[in-house]
Amino acid sequence: MAKRRYPLAKVYGLLEPGPVVLLTTARKGRPNVMTMSWHTMMEFEPPLVGCVVSGRNHSFDALRATKECAINIPTRELAKPVVGIGNCSGTQVDKFENFGLTPVAADEVQAPLIAECYASLECRVTDTRLVNRYNFFILEVVQAWVDTALKQPQTLHHRGNGVFFAPGEAFRLVSAMK
Amino acid sequence: MAKRRYPLAKVYGLLEPGPVVLLTTARKGRPNVMTMSWHTMMEFEPPLVGCVVSGRNHSFDALRATKECAINIPTRELAKPVVGIGNCSGTQVDKFENFGLTPVAADEVQAPLIAECYASLECRVTDTRLVNRYNFFILEVVQAWVDTALKQPQTLHHRGNGVFFAPGEAFRLVSAMK
Repeated sequence: MAKRRYPLAKVYGLLEPGPVVLLTTARKGRPNVMTMSWHTMMEFEPPLVGCVVSGRNHSFDALRATKECAINIPTRELAKPVVGIGNCSGTQVDKFENFGLTPVAADEVQAPLIAECYASLECRVTDTRLVNRYNFFILEVVQAWVDTALKQPQTLHHRGNGVFFAPGEAFRLVSAMK
Repeated sequence: MAKRRYPLAKVYGLLEPGPVVLLTTARKGRPNVMTMSWHTMMEFEPPLVGCVVSGRNHSFDALRATKECAINIPTRELAKPVVGIGNCSGTQVDKFENFGLTPVAADEVQAPLIAECYASLECRVTDTRLVNRYNFFILEVVQAWVDTALKQPQTLHHRGNGVFFAPGEAFRLVSAMK
């Protein structure tokens, strides 16, 4: 994907519709990736994202230790890796190699970006107050990359139990909503 | 919509795909409703939902004071009311009357359910630690109602600036993901 720098003020529109994302981390030079669906925007600019990273995930320790990650947004072509990544642990497997994903160096964080994803958000952990109770991290997006050639990206949305949908045709409604 | 009681363990699948929802509250006998897109699941069971309700919204005061609300999930037929509700304030307008929505009494909370929505979740506020800093409320879903006749509900997903999509055809991927 030919991603370019993307205005931080527009980042909310990438996550607000609720796509499944791939969260990347790196610790001691070792990258990892997990599938994540429990996230929400919390502020427009600087963009803040709240997300749940289960303590059972290998990524949890890396995220807590390094306070850095990237949120990568896959499209439908990556559905199989997305599910596969959700079903194995980075303790046993190099998921990048195993699922044919290409790590790309980020600008601001050690966590790699995923070349095959149409959007990647470099993030720093800014608030850990709810980590102990809910595994809930608050991230600030510090740099965003998007392939803006994709006007209607076929993001993945999870209804539970392995049932997904991708977006139908977009439509505009007159709105003062941001 | 012919909604029936729905197992709490399955609630995550309603919100995880990221639909725009209508949040209802009631204070001193007066119901109100707002449009909300910034929410995430935080726990499977009991289902916990984190959401941002801006302090600029009339609903913020009601939610903080009563600690009760309902999350109602509209489908595409309600797109115009959803946007209209997002563009006016409950301080000036009775939004139920103005947008032709029918309030239905809930079981567990004072906030009304919206008859025209295909799913309604009765919620209690369980954690307000992040309200002052982020307007972020954590809700526990205490009762759920769904019209299960809708197999592929045409929920609304907001890409920003009034651009929405509804789901395309669903597909299943072999998954151990919950």
